[in-house]
Amino acid sequence: MGDAAGIGPEIIAKAWPDLIPICRPVVVGDPLWLRWAIRLVGSTAAVRVIRHPDDFEPAHDVIPCLPASAQDLSSVEPGKVSAAAGRAAYDFLSAAIDWTRAGVADGIVTAPLHKEGLRSAGLHYPGHTEILAERTGTQQFAMLLSVPGLTVAHVTLHMALRDVFAHLTTAGIIEKIRLLDDVTRRLESREHPRIGVAALNPHASDGGLFGDEEATLIRPAVEAARVEGIDATGPWPSDTLFARARKGEFDGVVAMYHDQGHIALKLMGGMRAVNISAGLPLVRTSVAHGTAYDIAGRGVADPTSLVEATRVAARLVASKTEQGGN
Amino acid sequence: MGDAAGIGPEIIAKAWPDLIPICRPVVVGDPLWLRWAIRLVGSTAAVRVIRHPDDFEPAHDVIPCLPASAQDLSSVEPGKVSAAAGRAAYDFLSAAIDWTRAGVADGIVTAPLHKEGLRSAGLHYPGHTEILAERTGTQQFAMLLSVPGLTVAHVTLHMALRDVFAHLTTAGIIEKIRLLDDVTRRLESREHPRIGVAALNPHASDGGLFGDEEATLIRPAVEAARVEGIDATGPWPSDTLFARARKGEFDGVVAMYHDQGHIALKLMGGMRAVNISAGLPLVRTSVAHGTAYDIAGRGVADPTSLVEATRVAARLVASKTEQGGN
Repeated sequence: MGDAAGIGPEIIAKAWPDLIPICRPVVVGDPLWLRWAIRLVGSTAAVRVIRHPDDFEPAHDVIPCLPASAQDLSSVEPGKVSAAAGRAAYDFLSAAIDWTRAGVADGIVTAPLHKEGLRSAGLHYPGHTEILAERTGTQQFAMLLSVPGLTVAHVTLHMALRDVFAHLTTAGIIEKIRLLDDVTRRLESREHPRIGVAALNPHASDGGLFGDEEATLIRPAVEAARVEGIDATGPWPSDTLFARARKGEFDGVVAMYHDQGHIALKLMGGMRAVNISAGLPLVRTSVAHGTAYDIAGRGVADPTSLVEATRVAARLVASKTEQGGN
Repeated sequence: MGDAAGIGPEIIAKAWPDLIPICRPVVVGDPLWLRWAIRLVGSTAAVRVIRHPDDFEPAHDVIPCLPASAQDLSSVEPGKVSAAAGRAAYDFLSAAIDWTRAGVADGIVTAPLHKEGLRSAGLHYPGHTEILAERTGTQQFAMLLSVPGLTVAHVTLHMALRDVFAHLTTAGIIEKIRLLDDVTRRLESREHPRIGVAALNPHASDGGLFGDEEATLIRPAVEAARVEGIDATGPWPSDTLFARARKGEFDGVVAMYHDQGHIALKLMGGMRAVNISAGLPLVRTSVAHGTAYDIAGRGVADPTSLVEATRVAARLVASKTEQGGN
């Protein structure tokens, strides 16, 4: 459910009818807030409180909800930072991780949480991914962003553009190529997904005229990945790379910095963008937007990303089953 | 005509029927290469050699051609660098400038030229724009890139990403805002075109968390432009800015570096992208692609950008006439 003060409860209520054909969804969250959200969006679905994910079969008009937090959320207000909501979001995720690791659930889809909410509850995590990594003992992980037909891994992300140069390494690029290869193989059901690696400089440096990172950092990473049998190519000029990816020439793109990938993803996917945690020992996807406190509680939030995140998670679970698990 | 060894002649021959409804086109170039290109693309149009742009009325099946170079181009081969073709391209442009400055022609649309061709003819210009600037005595000029509904100015362009920081200045950003405001006012027939200025850092630095150029360089430029009466806003996070621009929220975007603008333009416009010279005392647009030596002479080149460049030039000329000059 994520942070109850955000748009999580209402996008779950709105998305519900579209989730049923995709999987057997169970809400790990607060039943009272779920009921409130159902009324808010004009749904007539009932909430059935359960103690185990298999207790009740989800249906169009019945939403099974697993309460998973001791927090009292009755004083939480939509759009207001709340320590109780922050702590509860952590509890919801923890329970989902436990059920998934126990093999009862197949994967996790998360609604957004709020960093300030977590912090005011004394929990110092930048987001869901770090909690998941800590609780599964994972060192090498990454958030991938996916729109229909294209998944992007970023080598660097939330830092000043000026700081990117010090954080780009051949090892970091190889790691992202590997994670992207693994996820896109499962997402696109393609044995050798086509990974396009973006250049850092315009025109991929035009043979060294505009910078040297293509020759010194990126090309060695592409070559190392190819030695491992990965169908990685590049470095490609980033402007033509994304246009080619949209035409279907690539299954995944490795971007060197935040805006390089995000400009293309926002133009290509809009609300259909989905976050995928790569490198974890469990399947987990997430909406690609935040808690949207500014519109929370108004019933206007768009559930598209949640539906897409569920679709992607289901596909990853299916491919895992086909391949005998990882 | 640009460089005769490139795709210039054949895209002119292909585009011709689409140019007639837009304007009264005259080819400044080599009549023999034009005839060759007409046959190459399977057209039956005739070439009429003229001495003055008004000598003959262009028609669907008759292409008036003004020879404007003393070069013998009979030994030029498609796709091969040629000093004669390079020199001739310079002569074609010079003649077009002369006719336009004399008020006989209203504007110039250029097919691509080849830097190596120019250089081998002893002409050391990076491209058309610098020739135009020199011959019109212009100091402040810029190449804008336009796709239907959006025009982009780049503050920095062909340099390593690492070098961008040393080249970004508040004065440079203001200058680009002004040039973009002028061109988009004419292109979109809007008294106060909406100019969105891109941030340099992800999330527009998130309040200084990821860099400071938004506060120290970009915001002061936006504020200075607003004092001049320009409807400039920003700095906006670049990923959402282009997505908003596509929805129609902005007429022009100022990008801080090459790939920031080009990733979006290639996704939004593809072959419909057009170069516009801003700041010159005459109207001049250009195809947004190169000579494409690899496919020159095969008749497969796409004339879309030339048609769009002509359409944009005609619109700029019309707005100039309406407003009584520039």
